[in-house]
Amino acid sequence: MKINKGVEWAAHACSLLGPLWPDKGLPLSALAEFHELPEAYMAKQMQALSRAGIVKGGRGRNGFYVLSKSPKEITLLDILLAVDGNEPMFVCTEIRQNGPCAQASEDCTSPCGIAAHFARAERQYRASLEKIDLESLNAGVISDLSPDNLRDAADWLSENHRTLG
Amino acid sequence: MKINKGVEWAAHACSLLGPLWPDKGLPLSALAEFHELPEAYMAKQMQALSRAGIVKGGRGRNGFYVLSKSPKEITLLDILLAVDGNEPMFVCTEIRQNGPCAQASEDCTSPCGIAAHFARAERQYRASLEKIDLESLNAGVISDLSPDNLRDAADWLSENHRTLG
Ligand code: FES
Ligand code: FES
Repeated sequence: MKINKGVEWAAHACSLLGPLWPDKGLPLSALAEFHELPEAYMAKQMQALSRAGIVKGGRGRNGFYVLSKSPKEITLLDILLAVDGNEPMFVCTEIRQNGPCAQASEDCTSPCGIAAHFARAERQYRASLEKIDLESLNAGVISDLSPDNLRDAADWLSENHRTLG
Repeated sequence: MKINKGVEWAAHACSLLGPLWPDKGLPLSALAEFHELPEAYMAKQMQALSRAGIVKGGRGRNGFYVLSKSPKEITLLDILLAVDGNEPMFVCTEIRQNGPCAQASEDCTSPCGIAAHFARAERQYRASLEKIDLESLNAGVISDLSPDNLRDAADWLSENHRTLG
């Protein structure tokens, strides 16, 4: 059970766009360059974020990405589901309805106990990620930076950002 | 992020073996037949459970599987990890150490904030599954059965079980 590695990239891209919201953003090339990531694969993640309504823009030669909404309204769960998909981790194939002691489908109106426990665990997983919005995420990321890193990143953002027209 | 579908099969197999513990078990063919599952693929799941110390036996023409320990000591988490592996779902590739504002590796002694949030969510996921032991799981499964199903399953178990030594 592995999360698509694009989630790490997308989360860091959103983290970079956070301080630029609401009217500034970054071109794809800069988003890829910041962490030395291949641009074509970074583009895929940004498209997934765009489809999910987390970022907008990006199209065209002079295009750039901007968060679609406030960092307070974007959670790590949103980013995970945008990039990794919204399918449940555990899929019950109703094997209880097969075999010599098969349960009748009309008796299977509630989920199998095993499936129900996995679903509950998954709800808790998602709830945990839903609590982390991009604003609090960035507060944590920034407090982890050394003073030098913080200055480097601020300089880089001011050189590379674009402003909505 | 998908859990191996063998987890559903393995969890149901353990659930069948629960009431037979400590001295009775079921041959592979019966474990597969109960839910009409392909025997070769069921064998893979049982081998995984065996490697993890959850079941024992099974080898040889007259072999059968028995739980290795009390149903109270086996959790859904044990079964998940046995079949799906013990790797974390979210793997941080330390992209923060790349690029024009790379963080120095000596400054990266604690996990990146993003990775830390995913790790916390995963701990909660696992903790939720760790709370469910096979005894309580089976209490739930049994209470969901119709009286007819319960009798069918009890009859089937008494016909198909084997006794140790
Ligand atoms: S029938 Fe799918 S988990 Fe039980
Ligand atoms: S560097 Fe891996 S999640 Fe931040």
